[in-house]
Parts: sequence; structure tokens; C-alpha cells
Amino acid sequence: MAKIAVLGFGVVGSGTVELFYRNKESIIKKAGKDLDIKYILDIRDFPDSPYADKLVKDINVILNDDEVTLVAECMGGVKFAYGFVKDCLLKGKSVATSNKELVAQKGAELLAIAKEKGCNFFFEASVGGAIPIIRPMHQCLAANEITAVAGILNGTTNFILTKMIEENMKFSDALSMAQKLGYAEADPTADVEGLDACRKICILSSLAFGKHVYPDNVHTEGISAITPRDIADAEKWGGAVKLIGAVRKLDNNKIMPYVAPHFVCRENLISSVNDVFNAVMVSGDAIDKAMFYGRGAGKFPTASAVVADIIDMAKADKTSISQVWEDADNSTFVEKIENNETEMYVRVKSSDKAVIEKFGAEIISDENGEVSFVTPCLSEKEIEEKLTGVEVVSKIRILAM
Amino acid sequence: MAKIAVLGFGVVGSGTVELFYRNKESIIKKAGKDLDIKYILDIRDFPDSPYADKLVKDINVILNDDEVTLVAECMGGVKFAYGFVKDCLLKGKSVATSNKELVAQKGAELLAIAKEKGCNFFFEASVGGAIPIIRPMHQCLAANEITAVAGILNGTTNFILTKMIEENMKFSDALSMAQKLGYAEADPTADVEGLDACRKICILSSLAFGKHVYPDNVHTEGISAITPRDIADAEKWGGAVKLIGAVRKLDNNKIMPYVAPHFVCRENLISSVNDVFNAVMVSGDAIDKAMFYGRGAGKFPTASAVVADIIDMAKADKTSISQVWEDADNSTFVEKIENNETEMYVRVKSSDKAVIEKFGAEIISDENGEVSFVTPCLSEKEIEEKLTGVEVVSKIRILAM
Repeated sequence: MAKIAVLGFGVVGSGTVELFYRNKESIIKKAGKDLDIKYILDIRDFPDSPYADKLVKDINVILNDDEVTLVAECMGGVKFAYGFVKDCLLKGKSVATSNKELVAQKGAELLAIAKEKGCNFFFEASVGGAIPIIRPMHQCLAANEITAVAGILNGTTNFILTKMIEENMKFSDALSMAQKLGYAEADPTADVEGLDACRKICILSSLAFGKHVYPDNVHTEGISAITPRDIADAEKWGGAVKLIGAVRKLDNNKIMPYVAPHFVCRENLISSVNDVFNAVMVSGDAIDKAMFYGRGAGKFPTASAVVADIIDMAKADKTSISQVWEDADNSTFVEKIENNETEMYVRVKSSDKAVIEKFGAEIISDENGEVSFVTPCLSEKEIEEKLTGVEVVSKIRILAM
Repeated sequence: MAKIAVLGFGVVGSGTVELFYRNKESIIKKAGKDLDIKYILDIRDFPDSPYADKLVKDINVILNDDEVTLVAECMGGVKFAYGFVKDCLLKGKSVATSNKELVAQKGAELLAIAKEKGCNFFFEASVGGAIPIIRPMHQCLAANEITAVAGILNGTTNFILTKMIEENMKFSDALSMAQKLGYAEADPTADVEGLDACRKICILSSLAFGKHVYPDNVHTEGISAITPRDIADAEKWGGAVKLIGAVRKLDNNKIMPYVAPHFVCRENLISSVNDVFNAVMVSGDAIDKAMFYGRGAGKFPTASAVVADIIDMAKADKTSISQVWEDADNSTFVEKIENNETEMYVRVKSSDKAVIEKFGAEIISDENGEVSFVTPCLSEKEIEEKLTGVEVVSKIRILAM
């Protein structure tokens, strides 16, 4: 028998508790041992909850109860979650978390503590919600040298872009709709400016290449500047605009992680991933490429990943050695965005049309006083240099994967 | 240190050996122990192979060597592979296989032996080649009750259908092209008549619902009867023709597995999966749906899955309890195809046009003396009854997932 504590009784925490009890019989069968939830930690009161008797407000109740060996952290944020998770791991309790901010900022440290204490720190729910991606990457693709990862890592922005593409909406109108439907928060900054996707590409980069990549070192652009003209030009070019978190290994052995809107060509399945769905494409030396698709957020999709981690923690009697990365000085292995080599969609004032010749590029559209084209594959620094003195209206990378 | 034996030095077997040595350093790191390949079993001689010193012709060399604890079966077929794998498991050696025929026919028995002997029988490579699907289904989605699985499980037929769709080719011409490119065998029956996809849906059904589903009990149709008119009508209807292996849980607690061409609507990502790529969509009560996409065959993609299984077998010190199913009398839980409820694309002689009224359906196309429509969702028996006395030219199910 193993006892579980769930930290946080919000959307994901309550989903985790509900899903556990809904499918308890088969969950126990798969875990191979009896399991039950002993505590739920929250500072709020839930007198009407059927789980009211499990609620506690003091983390020490959980920390000091040796019967609790499995912890699900569903609080979010770093401020409190970091200390709680660290203390649980130091006590040898395994922790599953849905908290991407925590993993992106403190993953290396927490993984090291888990290893030292012989327990596990799992975070399948932190990227791609319901989509199995963490475990497939380090376990199913373990025979591969991973060369690149790219994906739609944020459902809110994918919903907004889908509305802009399919219904010709402006960004601001699509954002309002997302907020009305509950897909975007009142302060949508973390989603629309790419911060959420940045945390996730940090986690995937760290896992794929074995060294912790910190959010501060990852170039991040959101979608708030994307206009209907960008969308229309992508369609003319032969694809769609998607917010992509990407990382790839470079010939100099550094890696190039970043988050930005991209033109994605129609032949790439990622261009067909719409609404709030997420998808992650992984390239490896043996598999060529594989893609994982599903709901990137939501109460039960996220809880599904948390409970799967709980089952695996219950089955494990030692630290998982493949899901691990080391802390590292990012300056030595994270390449600067100016050295990123990419094709680039560029739109300039029609009066600056002459610059297109410098790139030997073809015009995509020339209307309303603005002309657009796609550059050959060059470093971003070179593209900047060629554009010196020109008023650039829009600049969007082309996804090469 | 664990020693590995590879059975069969054909495409997958040689890929497994090459991939192991190419990425040996990181494979050993992920396995957490030193690994090496000690034997390769093949009746043929390979004097020029760099691995010639490992080749043996007698399975008893492997069976009687206690140092060999991990076996990769890459021979294919059931005749010899069954006995070899069974004997390895009986000796307590864990076995990874890429052999879908073996798993579809003997999975329950071999899993039971592995359990009894405390070793493992893994088969990630048997479905979807490089695509992680076996492990995600029983491990990452373990918190879910799986309700349905549907996918493109055969690359050869997907290539042929893609050519028929994109280049208006006839089936026979697309098949010839697939043969020229090495995507289809000289005798393409197992692929084009759906037998290969049938074995794979048997494996996925057994895994999802816990009871062994045997190929003989699964209704199977191929794509050799698909015509350009079917393809054109699918386009008009709003989708594409794909060969789908599917299974779903019914309200009567039986399951409905089958393989057949389907109309797949454009909104379903499966409709965008082209060429030799495979994709599997899984529905569960918590995740809604998730899709896994990648190369379903090929030397290194398949070897990638075999080697990932080897790594997991090396890490394990007991039988994996979640990847298991029981033998069972299929007649008690596999529903008959006549009770399958589905919408159906039907094409009849224009002279029989009156039958469309019986279905209250709208015409998709009416040309060259044939008229087509899509029925409402009815049991296949009911659809048959309404079509009594009518000459049916084509009948293709609509994918509901």
C-alpha cells in the first residue's frame, strides 16, 4: 500500500483526485500495489467536497507522514511549490508535477535531489498536457540521438491563430473570443507572448540534450504582432502561421532553442494541428521523425498525465536514470539567436522593394503599400545586415523541420 | 554487464545491430549497465560483415549461454520464431520482437510465460515501427479507460492511397510504383488486403482491452477494390480514403475490431497523414484523444523501437505488469461486424437511385451511370437490408472517431 498526497486542489489537483477515484481499480492493477490518496493540501476550505476529510493546510503534516511516499504537485508557480517539492524529495518521497514553471527553473536541482534520495521527480504533465511526450522522448526514443524538437506547445495561442486563419479574425478579436471561452486568462501575457511555450521548450531541450536550459537564455517571441496580412501571405506561400517552440543541435555542438511564430508548410503535419490542440515533432537519427498530438491543457487531460506519473512512481523502486539532466552554464552550449540560420518571411514598405534583389527572392504579395518575400537560408545576423536602412513591417521565420 | 542475442540478420536485425553500435555509449548510459551483442543468429553466412564473429546458426548456443539475458527477435514469421522465442522466455531471457505476426497469434501465451519466469516480452516495434505506441498506451495513458483506437497501420497501402489521391493514379499503377520503390513486396497480398494492418489492430486491441484478440476473428478488407471514383467522391464529401485499423468498446461491453478502407474527414488529423507514414489515434476517458505519428516501417525506424525495448529490458528487474493481456474466448467479447454501427458511403447504379430515399440521404455524385451517397449511422445489417435487390458498386465506412 502506498499513500498519495496531492498539493493544490485547483483545476489540475481536483482533476487528479477525481480521475484517481474514477479509475481506481484499473490504476491499482497497473501499479501492482494498493494506492490511496491520504491528503490534499490547499489553503482554501472545501466543506462541500466529497474529499473534505483529506484536506490539510500544513505541508508538514505530509512531510512528516512516512506513509506518504507519492506526491502530486498541482499548485503551479514557483514561490511555494519549489520549497514544498524540494522538501518532499529530501524526505525521499517521489513527486509528480504538472508545473512547467517549476521544472523549467528548478528541474536540474530537483532531479539531482531525487537521484540522491533514490526517489523520482516526474513531470509528464508539464509539457503537452495529455500528450505522452516526456516518457516517449527519454524511454521509447532512447536508442536515438535526438537532433531536433519542434512543436505547438501552447493551446491558447494555437486557438487564436486558428481563428485568425479560418475566420479571418484580427488578433485582438480572436484573443477576446479565447478569453470568453475560458481558453485565455484575463492577463494573457504568459500565453500570447510565448512565455508558457518557452518554459516547455526549455524542458524538452534539457531532456533531449542532457543539460538544463533556462528560460532567460531562450529567445522568445509571441503572436501579438501577427496580422491578417501575415496569415494571408502564409496561405499564399503554401502554409500556415503557428507559434513554434523549437530546438535543434548545431554542427558546433551547441543547441539553438527559441520560441517564435513560424510559417509552417502544408506538407508538415504541424500545419494541420488546430484549435487548442498541441503537437510535438521529434527528429532522431534512427526514427527520422515522429509526432505526438493531443490536448495540451485542461482538467482531465493534464490529470491523466499526473496520474500516469503516480502509477510509474508506485511501480518504481529506484530512480529513473534516463529522465535526467545536469545543471550547466548555458553560455557554453546555447547558441545566440543572431547565429540562427533560417529562411525568413519579410514584409517591407513597397518603396523599399529594391531590397528584395539583395536576397534574390520572389515576391509573395505586393499590395496596400507593402511587399513581402521569403529570404534564402541565412543567419539572422546576415538577414539583419541586408535589411539595414529598410523599414521592416513584419518578419517571421520559416520552419525547416 | 548484460549480453544480447539478435535472432535474424535481415533488414531489421542488421539495423538493430548497426544502431546499437552507432549509439552504444548513450544506450549504455540510459540502460544504466554495460551492454554488448554476443550472438547474431542466422542460417545464412555473412563473411564480409564486421559482425561475422558473432554469427551462429544454432539457437541452442544462445539458449544454453546464461550470460545472454536479452534477446531481440527480428526473424519474422511464426514457424521458427515462435519456438525460439518461447524457449528463450522459458530460460528466463527477456525478448524484444518486431514480429507482429508472432505477437498477434501467440502474444497471450508468450506474455504468460514471461510473467511466470519473471522476465519480459516486449514488442514496441511490432506496431507502427518507429512510433512509440505500445508503451504510451499501457504506461503513459495508464490512468485512462481507453474507449477506442483507430489508425493508419500500414505504410504500403497509405503510400498507394496517397498516390491515388494526389496524382489521380489507379490502384494497379500506384501498386506498381510502390513495388518499384521497394515499399511493396512482389506478392503484396499481406499489405493490400489488410492482413498486416489486421495483425496490428489485434495487438492494439489486446493491449487496450486486456484480452487477446486473434486475427481470424477480425473482419478485414483491403484497398484493392478502391477506385478513382471512390477517391473523388471522398474529396467531394470533404475528406480522404484511408485504410484504417480500428477498435472501440461498445455499450454491451464487447469490442468491435476491424480493418477496412474509410472516408476520413478533413478535420481529423489522420486524413492528413500521407505517404508511407503511419498514425494511431487513441481515445480515453481523460485525454479525449491523442495521436502518435511516424514511420511505420524501415530498417532504422524499426530498429529504434527494438533497441528501446532492449534498453528497457536491461533496466527492468521484474516483469512489466501493465503490458499484459489474458487469453480469452473471442466469441464472448468480439462483436460481429454485422452489428457495427456506422455511416456508410454507398455507390449504386443510377437506375437504382430510388434506394437513396430509403436512407433519407443526399447525393454526393451522379455520373457515368452511378450515383453515390452517405447513409445515416445504422448497423451494417440494417444497411444491407435496405440495399436488398440493389446492385452495390462500392461501399466504404465513414470514420467516426
